[in-house]
Amino acid sequence: MALSGETAFITSLRAIAAHPAARGLTDDCAVLEFGGEALVLTHDMLVEGVHFLPDQDPADVAWKLVATNISDLASKGAEPVGVLLGYVLGKDDARLLEGLSEALNAYNVPLLGGDTVGGSGPQAMGLTAIGRATHRPVPSRSGAKAGNALWITGAVGAAMIGLEALRAGTGDSSAYRRPQARLSEGIALAPQVTAMMDVSDGLLLDAMRMADASGITFAIDSTAVPIAAPEVRRNEALRWGDDYELLFTLPSGTAPAVPATRIGQALARQNGPLLLDGKRLEAGDSPGFLHR
Amino acid sequence: MALSGETAFITSLRAIAAHPAARGLTDDCAVLEFGGEALVLTHDMLVEGVHFLPDQDPADVAWKLVATNISDLASKGAEPVGVLLGYVLGKDDARLLEGLSEALNAYNVPLLGGDTVGGSGPQAMGLTAIGRATHRPVPSRSGAKAGNALWITGAVGAAMIGLEALRAGTGDSSAYRRPQARLSEGIALAPQVTAMMDVSDGLLLDAMRMADASGITFAIDSTAVPIAAPEVRRNEALRWGDDYELLFTLPSGTAPAVPATRIGQALARQNGPLLLDGKRLEAGDSPGFLHR
Repeated sequence: MALSGETAFITSLRAIAAHPAARGLTDDCAVLEFGGEALVLTHDMLVEGVHFLPDQDPADVAWKLVATNISDLASKGAEPVGVLLGYVLGKDDARLLEGLSEALNAYNVPLLGGDTVGGSGPQAMGLTAIGRATHRPVPSRSGAKAGNALWITGAVGAAMIGLEALRAGTGDSSAYRRPQARLSEGIALAPQVTAMMDVSDGLLLDAMRMADASGITFAIDSTAVPIAAPEVRRNEALRWGDDYELLFTLPSGTAPAVPATRIGQALARQNGPLLLDGKRLEAGDSPGFLHR
Repeated sequence: MALSGETAFITSLRAIAAHPAARGLTDDCAVLEFGGEALVLTHDMLVEGVHFLPDQDPADVAWKLVATNISDLASKGAEPVGVLLGYVLGKDDARLLEGLSEALNAYNVPLLGGDTVGGSGPQAMGLTAIGRATHRPVPSRSGAKAGNALWITGAVGAAMIGLEALRAGTGDSSAYRRPQARLSEGIALAPQVTAMMDVSDGLLLDAMRMADASGITFAIDSTAVPIAAPEVRRNEALRWGDDYELLFTLPSGTAPAVPATRIGQALARQNGPLLLDGKRLEAGDSPGFLHR
């Protein structure tokens, strides 16, 4: 869950980040005009004990660092042009490099630079991903309009099942260990969507963020959401994160350019950002993970 | 001093970073063609206990994080267009934000985005600085030619004296706490220089790096180097870092566009990168700080 210090810090940061390219620090990426094109920029960190466990395979950690940043670019329809790595040395740096190399090859993105430092405490690493917008305007979280349909690529809950397999030491854990960024899907969708983001912290929580940014309310039909988990775990799957599917809105009647599922629609703003099967989430019914 | 693990890791990283924009990870910045302009990119981290002390003023730490990254842009003649912050929360985040805001205002550079995460261990933070080249080709470390003159802006040793003042609790510590990036100087020099870098790890060590990158040997006259310290400490000042002056080479006979001092010249490559007052540094005579 979010620390109150974190929330306060981000609020203060937003006051500093007044440049329009920062998008109020509420979008997946910054979007900066540069040389007649749009530069799409994101930086995500992973910290040992917060985002990964000390005994996790460093190659998987590196993969996730790359995939989560590339996923942010995907959600803006950007093609990656390079990454910079900030890295505090850890226990098995050679293994981390293997995963880094695999992920960079998988997304065909070059390592351009960064910084490597020694450290004795919990390991931390950050990646800056730099992309080129393939469509203007660059999709935002704030463009959903009342009457738009809400769509999602793929299914949610796969990472939840994958983490359980990893913990159990049996079964397929790849969805958790090696998430896939929906890069080609994001580029195909960018010209169509009115709003788009990636689902990193849970479908319901991220849908609420898009609704708040757009000033509308989403009505989501829980049974319409494809899940990659047993049916009895549907409610959990709607709240779990780490699946990195794309959540987007289209004008009513528009068919998406890639396989996706319609899971709801945008309504004029009501009392709250989300109606799930016609009802507001009750207090205490967490919509997802504020921190992972 | 450099950890052997760090050296090995960076060597392995270089094998991955084959894209020409990465400049072999041996320059101050990556330089990427984008939209008909040159994007200049750098990312530096600061880690508690390695680069700053737990009791240091967080506002000074933030200032240094910004100034060191902007200094890298300055050394390539780039004007900053934005920064992304990766930040692990610490003990006094409000004070850190004050320093961050002061530094961003001083260099007139917008905060565009980043990531904030909780953490319980030593604090770590990284900054990505994004710049626009003001002159093509973008200066590198590798362009010094035999016969070129070697120049430096300002003086070295000020940060050394500043750190001592800070530790003593008396005297002017600002050169250490609030280093200045030579941004306007870098932009003015970019069209003139054959090679340029900033001096972060000590004049002698950084000069050796430029010599190695350029395949020449520098002959430096130690008495010609302006120092901001008592004369008895000249040898230390030549080896201390954190001053962030610009070190550059010009064709013989060219006068620099900004105040600077000629401290030596480039010779055809000899046995080693550096002659100090005509002599190679002896083994055991450290040229500077490999890690700070």
